[in-house]
Amino acid sequence: MSKSKLTEDEAGKLSPAEMRAIIRRGEWTEPDEMACLGYWKANMAIVPKDWAYEFLLYAQRNPQPCWVGAATDPGDPCPRQIADKDADLRTDLPRYRVFENGKIIDEPTDILKYWRDDLVAFLIGAFPNTAWIFKNAGVHYRLCGAYNSAIPLVPAGRLHGNMAVSATIFKTSHDAVRAVQISSRYPDGHGAPVHIGDGATIGVKDFYHPDIIPLVNVKPLHHPDMVGKGYDLEPGEVLMWWGCGVTPQLAALAAKVPFMITHWAAHLFISDTHCEDWSIL
Amino acid sequence: MSKSKLTEDEAGKLSPAEMRAIIRRGEWTEPDEMACLGYWKANMAIVPKDWAYEFLLYAQRNPQPCWVGAATDPGDPCPRQIADKDADLRTDLPRYRVFENGKIIDEPTDILKYWRDDLVAFLIGAFPNTAWIFKNAGVHYRLCGAYNSAIPLVPAGRLHGNMAVSATIFKTSHDAVRAVQISSRYPDGHGAPVHIGDGATIGVKDFYHPDIIPLVNVKPLHHPDMVGKGYDLEPGEVLMWWGCGVTPQLAALAAKVPFMITHWAAHLFISDTHCEDWSIL
Repeated sequence: MSKSKLTEDEAGKLSPAEMRAIIRRGEWTEPDEMACLGYWKANMAIVPKDWAYEFLLYAQRNPQPCWVGAATDPGDPCPRQIADKDADLRTDLPRYRVFENGKIIDEPTDILKYWRDDLVAFLIGAFPNTAWIFKNAGVHYRLCGAYNSAIPLVPAGRLHGNMAVSATIFKTSHDAVRAVQISSRYPDGHGAPVHIGDGATIGVKDFYHPDIIPLVNVKPLHHPDMVGKGYDLEPGEVLMWWGCGVTPQLAALAAKVPFMITHWAAHLFISDTHCEDWSIL
Repeated sequence: MSKSKLTEDEAGKLSPAEMRAIIRRGEWTEPDEMACLGYWKANMAIVPKDWAYEFLLYAQRNPQPCWVGAATDPGDPCPRQIADKDADLRTDLPRYRVFENGKIIDEPTDILKYWRDDLVAFLIGAFPNTAWIFKNAGVHYRLCGAYNSAIPLVPAGRLHGNMAVSATIFKTSHDAVRAVQISSRYPDGHGAPVHIGDGATIGVKDFYHPDIIPLVNVKPLHHPDMVGKGYDLEPGEVLMWWGCGVTPQLAALAAKVPFMITHWAAHLFISDTHCEDWSIL
């Protein structure tokens, strides 16, 4: 998919400005979760100004999937609170989704032709920020996929919908406990988990066929036998679930929002803010 | 000031519903920071619906003083996300302030006559929630006063102003370090401190004459000699400053907001939510 010869390791060492420039030139259209390690990456939702209050309220009422780290002024494509003035939300994410009246109408690699003077962009916490801390802390885990859940969110005005969730498997109970402790310190990376154990309990339909982000890191050997039986844990492993920043997209569909632009799952905006820079924490 | 014979210790053991009923009957008009220990207490700002988005954005951009825990629907005086349906923001705070065009026009003990169908109430983090955890953790501290600072906040639309801050003195460096660690875990109680040391650095004019909440817990012996010299620390003590939920009142004054109702400093709303109940943390 990507035209770039950049490896994931090389991308991890780039500055946000360098990586955004590569994405802007159309040379990287893949997930960028492992680029610019240590910098805060964000899910995104863009709505017209007359939906902005309801959106921000929806986020405030549902901070686990939708923690807002920055909001732009209407018509301004640069999230100045968290990025240099050269950053441009219309071109600097690897892939987007455009929603109209509750339907996906496009999945472009830039949104220049959709941009309007009344649009407000919200940058939302993303799990890779937390996963990177897990890695630094020596926590043993494997990210799996992202899914629709049946967890209903608190509505705000016209906005409603269920939570999108992502699954991560931890090697031992100790790793899982550390992951709860660490993630709780990072509301900007979805905070604490929303569920421990079988995804069926929270309405996840099929662990092996994620609705949102394809499954990775699940061993093929375990795969065929376990379909429909939940998930393939090794003895002692613990499965945990976090809110996912794709959640606004579920609201766009459920509430038939007239117009919304989002990132494409796992294709995030990379800010110039360090993950540790949120001063309240 | 209070007509109640209730002691602070007795108030500490009441349920939020019991304490709100006493306040509603006009039997408690004093600070209620030590009532219903363990329950989340909130500063408050009420604005007309056409200011609600800007207010919520101002809070999002300045979470240390203005972390929002709940927002009501327009015209609804009950913060249903954090309190039983009997709670009423028009009567359940011990004292209020009413602002018109950037001036304080009233300081009543209820706001029934000011209530309108287009008003939206925001419940905002309060330091007593965190101070209570300090106490449980054996941290030695003394709360002092609350002040205007010269720390400018990030504007949002028509809203701008400086941060209100509160001062707390810690007995030892160890107590101060623990306080940073603990408070960082409670964004709902203003999170991490904004300053360590002399208040003059952040524009506090006179430690002995706080602008907002009168000085307590500062020994009279130290008082006269030290006026104008900063603050009266014992050897080894550390002074630290947190964002204060009176901050929206400074915005009402600075931005000449046409209409805002707030709590009176330290006269808080008491929710039915436990301080530990914020699921993201």
